Amino acid sequence: MRLATIRTPAGTRAVRVDADRAVETGHADVGALLAEPGWRSLAEAADGPAHEPSGLDHAPVVPRPGKIICVGVNYGAHIAEMGRETPAHPTLFAKYPEALVGARDDVVLPAASGAVDWEAELAVVIGTTVRHADEQTAAAAIAGYSVLNDVTARDWQYRTLQWLQGKTFEATTPFGPELVTPDEAGSALDLTCAVDGQVVQSANTADLVFGAVATIAYVSTVLTLHPGDVLALGTPGGVGHARTPPRYLTPGSVLTTAIAGLGECRNTCVAEQRP
Amino acid sequence: MRLATIRTPAGTRAVRVDADRAVETGHADVGALLAEPGWRSLAEAADGPAHEPSGLDHAPVVPRPGKIICVGVNYGAHIAEMGRETPAHPTLFAKYPEALVGARDDVVLPAASGAVDWEAELAVVIGTTVRHADEQTAAAAIAGYSVLNDVTARDWQYRTLQWLQGKTFEATTPFGPELVTPDEAGSALDLTCAVDGQVVQSANTADLVFGAVATIAYVSTVLTLHPGDVLALGTPGGVGHARTPPRYLTPGSVLTTAIAGLGECRNTCVAEQRP
Repeated sequence: MRLATIRTPAGTRAVRVDADRAVETGHADVGALLAEPGWRSLAEAADGPAHEPSGLDHAPVVPRPGKIICVGVNYGAHIAEMGRETPAHPTLFAKYPEALVGARDDVVLPAASGAVDWEAELAVVIGTTVRHADEQTAAAAIAGYSVLNDVTARDWQYRTLQWLQGKTFEATTPFGPELVTPDEAGSALDLTCAVDGQVVQSANTADLVFGAVATIAYVSTVLTLHPGDVLALGTPGGVGHARTPPRYLTPGSVLTTAIAGLGECRNTCVAEQRP
Repeated sequence: MRLATIRTPAGTRAVRVDADRAVETGHADVGALLAEPGWRSLAEAADGPAHEPSGLDHAPVVPRPGKIICVGVNYGAHIAEMGRETPAHPTLFAKYPEALVGARDDVVLPAASGAVDWEAELAVVIGTTVRHADEQTAAAAIAGYSVLNDVTARDWQYRTLQWLQGKTFEATTPFGPELVTPDEAGSALDLTCAVDGQVVQSANTADLVFGAVATIAYVSTVLTLHPGDVLALGTPGGVGHARTPPRYLTPGSVLTTAIAGLGECRNTCVAEQRP
């Protein structure tokens, strides 16, 4: 099953996306849908107003997650090529919902930064409340997967030891277009990032050091995960900051973030307009 | 004016705390009150059910902030004594609402950590939506001040380069008891932390490198701050991890976090009970 949050003249709506139509579930967005204990059955049975799948205006698939927790340094081949050791624990940092944009929205390049970079990532969305989850419970807590680009202002990321301020600029982080349930998503997925059609990152999620289940189990040792919470599982090699010379996003850049079977975000970068 | 979120048999309630009574404002908590554009007038005029001020059961003063953004390395004397340079930019990291407890609640020491430490802090609560705030706008965006203890699992904080996982364990962070509006709170406030009655931290908020106004202006360059968002402005010297030998919180420790004029949190530490 595939779910999305779409914008309509009456506001956002959660939809189940079938091959030939997108059917409203009766919830304002996928976050509100996931907050219902029986969300899978509700979504499967939904038979509300229908939309043409080709013309949807996608909001971030979960527009206001309670938590967005990102994992850094998490692709094995990239860690090896950097000469680092495989980490014993996931590196975790935060992003706030204000950073999110939809799968076709513009990415706003902050006027305050001259070094905005891409980071294609697999996102996992939580479907049930979990704390101290073992692997089985963690696996059962996955609502589904989606595509996220952890667009980062490198100059702000490295201003201080803590990365948060470079990771959460407003309207920088594509997230969507759909949430794909585990049975349909499969595993070992090809992930790519392209800038103006040129592939700049290419990896397979089988190379993740901490996959979805391990990350959920780890994070749930620290605090409770709730439906709609998002974990972004880190990015492989190929970011612009590590190139010689460095390469960053500029106004007009088209950023395409794709994961096989999940879909793609295709976002145009625009300069921030200050009021 | 002083505001609090209290627990009643019917659920949480926002109250205005007068000298002789605490009057319900008609909102579920202080976060819901602050979401109303005219919250100051509404709170001043509130005349709902009244409670004895001495017997209140305090929830975190804003139970579910949209964002909790913490500042590290922010007291001048402590930076100098550590031999560091005064930072050019605030160090920012996150904490999630699941970490918060009320002013008299137990602090839960995670079973997974053996190094839980104290960090007494001045908290600022946002009262109006701001982005790209200058100093005047930033000052006007302050709803009020409160007391917070950024209780930290040092072993988890330093597992990786990013501190988040040590900063956001469930039910570790006292926040309250009240939000005190700027006209009543004043400035240059004495802040102390005591463990079992022994003062372990003592400073004055006049020594902050980045005060409330500067921090709001800085953060609002990155993203929009909304009513109910919380900024925790960092802790002075005297934490347990920096002592020889290190000293940590243990079950039964009483942690008292006080700021002159704002009030105090007094929390007993308890060992986590795993289900």
